[in-house]
Amino acid sequence: MSAVSRKKSISSASFNLQSYVGDCTDAVNRALDKFLPKETVAPPTIHKAMRYSIFAGGKRMRPALCLAAAEACGGKQVDAMPLACAVECIHTYSLIHDDLPAMDNDDFRRGKPTNHKVFGEGIAVLAGDALLTQAFEIAALSKSWPRYSHRELVLEIAKASGSLQLIAGQVADLEGEGKKVSEAQLKYIHERKTSALLCCSVRLGGMSANCTPPQLKALTDFGYNVGLAFQVIDDILDVTQTTEQLGKTAGKDTKAQKATYPSIVGLEKSRAIAEQLTKRAFDALKPFKGKAQALEGLAEYLLKRDK
Amino acid sequence: MSAVSRKKSISSASFNLQSYVGDCTDAVNRALDKFLPKETVAPPTIHKAMRYSIFAGGKRMRPALCLAAAEACGGKQVDAMPLACAVECIHTYSLIHDDLPAMDNDDFRRGKPTNHKVFGEGIAVLAGDALLTQAFEIAALSKSWPRYSHRELVLEIAKASGSLQLIAGQVADLEGEGKKVSEAQLKYIHERKTSALLCCSVRLGGMSANCTPPQLKALTDFGYNVGLAFQVIDDILDVTQTTEQLGKTAGKDTKAQKATYPSIVGLEKSRAIAEQLTKRAFDALKPFKGKAQALEGLAEYLLKRDK
Repeated sequence: MSAVSRKKSISSASFNLQSYVGDCTDAVNRALDKFLPKETVAPPTIHKAMRYSIFAGGKRMRPALCLAAAEACGGKQVDAMPLACAVECIHTYSLIHDDLPAMDNDDFRRGKPTNHKVFGEGIAVLAGDALLTQAFEIAALSKSWPRYSHRELVLEIAKASGSLQLIAGQVADLEGEGKKVSEAQLKYIHERKTSALLCCSVRLGGMSANCTPPQLKALTDFGYNVGLAFQVIDDILDVTQTTEQLGKTAGKDTKAQKATYPSIVGLEKSRAIAEQLTKRAFDALKPFKGKAQALEGLAEYLLKRDK
Repeated sequence: MSAVSRKKSISSASFNLQSYVGDCTDAVNRALDKFLPKETVAPPTIHKAMRYSIFAGGKRMRPALCLAAAEACGGKQVDAMPLACAVECIHTYSLIHDDLPAMDNDDFRRGKPTNHKVFGEGIAVLAGDALLTQAFEIAALSKSWPRYSHRELVLEIAKASGSLQLIAGQVADLEGEGKKVSEAQLKYIHERKTSALLCCSVRLGGMSANCTPPQLKALTDFGYNVGLAFQVIDDILDVTQTTEQLGKTAGKDTKAQKATYPSIVGLEKSRAIAEQLTKRAFDALKPFKGKAQALEGLAEYLLKRDK
């Protein structure tokens, strides 16, 4: 079944993606508000800066994938929530640091001035550090199982965010600027910069539900492919959308002479690759036999999104 | 018994501080070399940058305190080592970020150019991020006990390093520059900027040895006081030593108009405060009835150090 024809079944009576995403976002926002120190807690500057970026209107796609994966494995939202929030803290920290003048030097993110434009570079570095640290604190508050102890959960997050994955992707991205990059090298960057944490979000959802090893394998395949598709679409949107539509600086990849799928294989083939990756993600969900509607819906949504 | 008279017993036949510190440093360096990805692992830049700062000749005081606390509680060095290394990764990350132009803007650390002077600001930010992340990965590899599960260990590290402790101290330090700061406010900064992680190192050592709650309480009192004394001495050395003696820029507190103990209460009273704090640290060790020689030796060493 193609990704497109599946969409029909997803938007049918039994599952409403828009309300699912809306409900997820509300629940995640409430949980993040509970987990993060209030703005008034000393020193207020750091907590204002952390909350500024956490509540800047992110799409909460990683938490939604985490919660949906838990659901697919018969788990409860409440058990997956700390892990969903931990991943969102990691994602937000990486954006704050990525936007710094020493990195991508971006002034806007999600339609708002970036963290360092509001709080200064020193506080922006510290706000990123604090969110990264907070992620582990929140993860430690999650439910655990004999198979998925806090040791396993912390290792999962640390590995996906560390110098062999998320940070490796950032480094390769920085070092690739202005250089000729092959399609294989670009895939290497995307796997690390985007797919690793997305895949980790999905796996953590499964772990929170005490999933079986075959379920974890299926979720890993799904997360890996959705993660790659997500970044290909990001590359496409960077050249096809305006800054206003994206809420962040458009055309910045081209300006920074960054290799992207459109720049290497063209727009049409990039779209075909994103479709194919999404198809593979759908295929990975077969073992769930229809119980992974939310994951399917999110994969479809990520493929079709316009920002 | 005064701190000074105790020194005699420490340097007596039964305990040789210098060889203890030397052995600790060697063992910690070997363990860090094992825990951190090799320089050749892709992307090499980030692993070179992480190792550059980790192996820049740090005194390994936090790991030594961690190992000594484990010993005082009858534990094994091998069980405390991952936690000792995790704390050193946190300490090193905080120095890399603290030295950035947006923060203290320091060119030298431990007699060598700072991380961003060698690798550039972007990589320095990422190397700090990677070491912070690695700390949790290493901590997750440690031994755990029913009383001190990985959940407890991760929470201990995350809280001591987070926005209410270590990062709060950095923020208060940044915000205090050029302002009139009271002795109470300065103590608030020192408790967070230095004492929190030092105390955490000592506590983690005890936890690795499955210490009793009263032992943990004693270690906490010890760590808190040693941590404060450490920072008072740091303040003193900043005004009394040269850049060459310190291996980092001397006089920088005065230049940055930072409040320090010497600037608020004068050099003589600062020395008396450091002595008194060390005395309190010694007193806290009474429950160990002579089994905490290494901790006593380290506290004395930290008081008497000249760099």
